[in-house]
Amino acid sequence: MSQNSKVRSRLIVSLDGYAAGPRQSRENPFGEGGMRLPQWQLESGRPGREGDARVLADSVENVGAYVMGRNMFGPVRGAWETYSEGEWRGWWGEEPPYHAPVFVLTHHPRESLTMSGGTTFHFVTEGVEAAVQQAREAAGDRDVVVAGGAHTVRSALAARLIDEITLHVVPLVLGEGERLLEGLDGLALEPLDTVSSPTVTHLRYGVPKV
Amino acid sequence: MSQNSKVRSRLIVSLDGYAAGPRQSRENPFGEGGMRLPQWQLESGRPGREGDARVLADSVENVGAYVMGRNMFGPVRGAWETYSEGEWRGWWGEEPPYHAPVFVLTHHPRESLTMSGGTTFHFVTEGVEAAVQQAREAAGDRDVVVAGGAHTVRSALAARLIDEITLHVVPLVLGEGERLLEGLDGLALEPLDTVSSPTVTHLRYGVPKV
Repeated sequence: MSQNSKVRSRLIVSLDGYAAGPRQSRENPFGEGGMRLPQWQLESGRPGREGDARVLADSVENVGAYVMGRNMFGPVRGAWETYSEGEWRGWWGEEPPYHAPVFVLTHHPRESLTMSGGTTFHFVTEGVEAAVQQAREAAGDRDVVVAGGAHTVRSALAARLIDEITLHVVPLVLGEGERLLEGLDGLALEPLDTVSSPTVTHLRYGVPKV
Repeated sequence: MSQNSKVRSRLIVSLDGYAAGPRQSRENPFGEGGMRLPQWQLESGRPGREGDARVLADSVENVGAYVMGRNMFGPVRGAWETYSEGEWRGWWGEEPPYHAPVFVLTHHPRESLTMSGGTTFHFVTEGVEAAVQQAREAAGDRDVVVAGGAHTVRSALAARLIDEITLHVVPLVLGEGERLLEGLDGLALEPLDTVSSPTVTHLRYGVPKV
């Protein structure tokens, strides 16, 4: 990993700081009331949403590898072979939108999984630091993105593994759910820039090394 | 109040949504760990902080009256005459920085208090709706500002008395304290614009009428 490459992250949060509403499920991945959180991504092609489209394009620009939590990869809990519906290969079908190595955090070892379009899922059982380290090596001169979910981003922030994070703040009060910034007391970020659109505000922050 | 005049509010919050840290006191009005919240206001004259200075100037521009909670006015609890240190006349000395009528929410009636420089404190016992209504009448063609604290702003938001709110987001995780956006589940705001500085991000939102 070169001097200029970074570990980045981004997460959609409600105005009151929730990455998802309560009672997340396979049918309701953003929890109850949380379906408005990802809505702006679907609408980013509309007139007046050029800022959103640019932020989305930037989020995949120059990315050499990804890290994600197991729940972001799929609904399987426990050992992989106990999953009754055959081999789980991710939510995204045979050609996932990553086009790069993806390091999936799990407690259960599994062989790497090569998909179409350049995505390979690697399964890392040694924790978030090891996953980010492996992703950095795989990314070379390019950036690593810690893709989610909230628990994984929180762990990576707590371990100061992230250089830069964008919060996509959706102006909705959820009132309950999973908070991103829990257990991070005293963390101080550095505002880098903001992009505002009619439905979401993008806040990009630097994370100082301690 | 004319068609164009608005009820505005603004509040400083931490990145995790707290308007103050825990254990607020007379010595520690922003609670433990919260003293960094108002810091940007003191530094707004520094080079590179022109955006902060402009946001501050806008916050008092065209304001005809203010509404505030009793704790923002002073440390007196219970009836006014029980205060042992003489007559409480606000935190700000004989010439408060408001230069306009200020409607103070309280459960305890008190005669209006005329200060130097155009500030008069009126004491309203009929609740936040009555206070905002009286402030609107006093403001005429100009705007009303609901100045704080967090409890008063929250009540006014819940009653949909506010047209526009600016959150000054300080990029610090406090972890505990008094949250602004509690008990407002389902509230959806409309992003208007953002101003970013090296130490704080100003998010201005419209509050839709229901």
